[in-house]
Amino acid sequence: MKLLFAKEEIYGRIEKFQKFLQDNAIDIAIIHHNADMFYFSGTIGNGYFIIPASGDPIFAVKRGVERIKSLSPISNVVVFKKSSELKELILNAGKTTPKTVGIAMDVITLSEFKFLETRICNNMTFKNISAPIRLQRSVKSESEISIMKKAAEIGDYVFSEAKKYIKPGLTEWNLCAYLEYQAKLKGNLGIVRVRNPHLEIVFGHVLSGPEGAEPSYGDTPTGGVGVSPAFAQGSSSRIISEGEFISIDTMLCYNGYLSDQTRNFCIGTPPEQLMEALETSLSLHNLFVQSAKPGATAGEIYDLILNEAKKSRLFEFFMGTGNNKVSFLGHGIGIEVDEFPFIAPKQNTILQKGMTIAFEPKFIIPGEGVAGIENTYVIQEGGALPLNTFPENLTTL
Amino acid sequence: MKLLFAKEEIYGRIEKFQKFLQDNAIDIAIIHHNADMFYFSGTIGNGYFIIPASGDPIFAVKRGVERIKSLSPISNVVVFKKSSELKELILNAGKTTPKTVGIAMDVITLSEFKFLETRICNNMTFKNISAPIRLQRSVKSESEISIMKKAAEIGDYVFSEAKKYIKPGLTEWNLCAYLEYQAKLKGNLGIVRVRNPHLEIVFGHVLSGPEGAEPSYGDTPTGGVGVSPAFAQGSSSRIISEGEFISIDTMLCYNGYLSDQTRNFCIGTPPEQLMEALETSLSLHNLFVQSAKPGATAGEIYDLILNEAKKSRLFEFFMGTGNNKVSFLGHGIGIEVDEFPFIAPKQNTILQKGMTIAFEPKFIIPGEGVAGIENTYVIQEGGALPLNTFPENLTTL
Repeated sequence: MKLLFAKEEIYGRIEKFQKFLQDNAIDIAIIHHNADMFYFSGTIGNGYFIIPASGDPIFAVKRGVERIKSLSPISNVVVFKKSSELKELILNAGKTTPKTVGIAMDVITLSEFKFLETRICNNMTFKNISAPIRLQRSVKSESEISIMKKAAEIGDYVFSEAKKYIKPGLTEWNLCAYLEYQAKLKGNLGIVRVRNPHLEIVFGHVLSGPEGAEPSYGDTPTGGVGVSPAFAQGSSSRIISEGEFISIDTMLCYNGYLSDQTRNFCIGTPPEQLMEALETSLSLHNLFVQSAKPGATAGEIYDLILNEAKKSRLFEFFMGTGNNKVSFLGHGIGIEVDEFPFIAPKQNTILQKGMTIAFEPKFIIPGEGVAGIENTYVIQEGGALPLNTFPENLTTL
Repeated sequence: MKLLFAKEEIYGRIEKFQKFLQDNAIDIAIIHHNADMFYFSGTIGNGYFIIPASGDPIFAVKRGVERIKSLSPISNVVVFKKSSELKELILNAGKTTPKTVGIAMDVITLSEFKFLETRICNNMTFKNISAPIRLQRSVKSESEISIMKKAAEIGDYVFSEAKKYIKPGLTEWNLCAYLEYQAKLKGNLGIVRVRNPHLEIVFGHVLSGPEGAEPSYGDTPTGGVGVSPAFAQGSSSRIISEGEFISIDTMLCYNGYLSDQTRNFCIGTPPEQLMEALETSLSLHNLFVQSAKPGATAGEIYDLILNEAKKSRLFEFFMGTGNNKVSFLGHGIGIEVDEFPFIAPKQNTILQKGMTIAFEPKFIIPGEGVAGIENTYVIQEGGALPLNTFPENLTTL
């Protein structure tokens, strides 16, 4: 199998992070989280990716050394079977015995942390390196963006298949299953990595008619009824009918990178109020495209878009209603769904060239349904550029 | 939507756990993990499920109260918007102010634990309640088993579809995608909950021919090549040919409960060595069926099966080869893939009636492929009863 990233790129990421470690007097970073491990090594192993503040990183795994060597440009891949062996590796990874160790505290479990604290890194001081890892990961390289474009292409393909397949009498569930199948045949990996352990996100939500406005239990603007109390979100067994909005929100993964997009479909004449909501969503996209430039903070963009949305007479339905409103308009996306930056209140993350953001201004109108589009964008000098190119915002059938 | 479990069953689970809390002087349990929350409430919410040692539990969520009220028999569902409100709820949940609080430390992140420790449960002592939760969850009720039977039925259906669909020239990936689509149409939810945050498990692995023997990077006996370094496991773009084993390992989820099963397929004449491995796998299943009775420990069953497997001349390939062998023969399964008990060395969990176990004695033979069957079983007085009923262990086409 071909490596996803050249050795120079992978070691460049490591060197950039080593600069952060040096500047913050952190002697060593222990990368345990799959998504972070993938970013720094180009693949995933069952173990730890160890980055000393200077010198060569070590990929220490319990098994599968040969596979990792064939999938990652990392030269130092070693197997450990006992915790004493892991300890030895960590103690000797840098030039001096480490005293301060960085770990991503938002994703390590308390049990695993206690294992590292008491068995491996005795008498060391722990620092939380989650934010700097997420900040570095938020700015994508050209090669990462080209992978994300491929994911977005699959997303566009899914919409073109939906256009051919939607017919009255089809259930949301069966339409979603068919689209997922088509996406798989085009290389969608079918996993959706999420940093927040409470969030569960799958391939797609097909939400139709008034029931589509059922609020989410998770931190997402749209919810849907689902088919089971065990996973009460997304597509339901509701039959799609004429004269209602069908919102198709898909999450594609190609070579480990995600693309998140939503389009609207309607058989026959669309409801007027949802058309108005869609128009507003589109104008908010235009504002985002123009204003989401390097240098602006995520919080400023949030305020700008929200103030514009307030001019709509449908504002009470914007991003949910009442207690069920969510407090963001977009989220960074890449290896994980919930990356930096968040287009949300008071976020002081400064937008940079190469950041990738799923922007999703949506209206959830009880008794009517869901309207709004979502694109995954990359931030460029002139503003935000959509990676999705499916041209129709509302496809009428 | 219909409730999955009657009020009596859900409150019975809570009362049983309250007995444990009382016996261990734990004043309150804070359930934060989705799978545990589903077990105790019948659904999932964005927040905490609070179980005082005695008295009524509280489902405290940030949003989606109405939905939870319609999907769970829990009567006390409240919304909190600020951490001070959550603190108030926890301080007043029991008869006295709690001093000792139980939390599942294997699944809570360090950041969330610190939030609870410093903002909510100040001056309280924390106890790890992961093992008792997992032990209670490991014994399934009649209603849980009937849901798991439905999941197993979908698994059986998938094999019957594979029998019709497999043909030379098809890729592993496309076969797997087709089967996943068929499973979705039968109600497979498409999520696979895993307790271990390092494990990533999807619908299925279709592994064919010699490349199927590629070891896993995760803690699973079979691996597969996959299609990307970003998720290097499972089905690949390899074309299925005549005269080789095709191992189809599927993970179905129906109403939140899983079924895990593997069957073998072959176009034409199967390789002799893999046939021998399959025969051995079957005889180990027979031994498991007879011996996995209430009262035996999981470790005893592991030793018994392993000693029998050692008699095979193919033992060096049993559960992997060399450094890539895994040290278990089966795993508890239900809401999560990796439940108690583990059929693994030195496990002292005592088997009980109603425990559900995926048993998977497999041979991974480099240069040849993968052979072995897997069933999800329920422990009964007389031994283990398979929930899967697809009758063919090797389907020749």
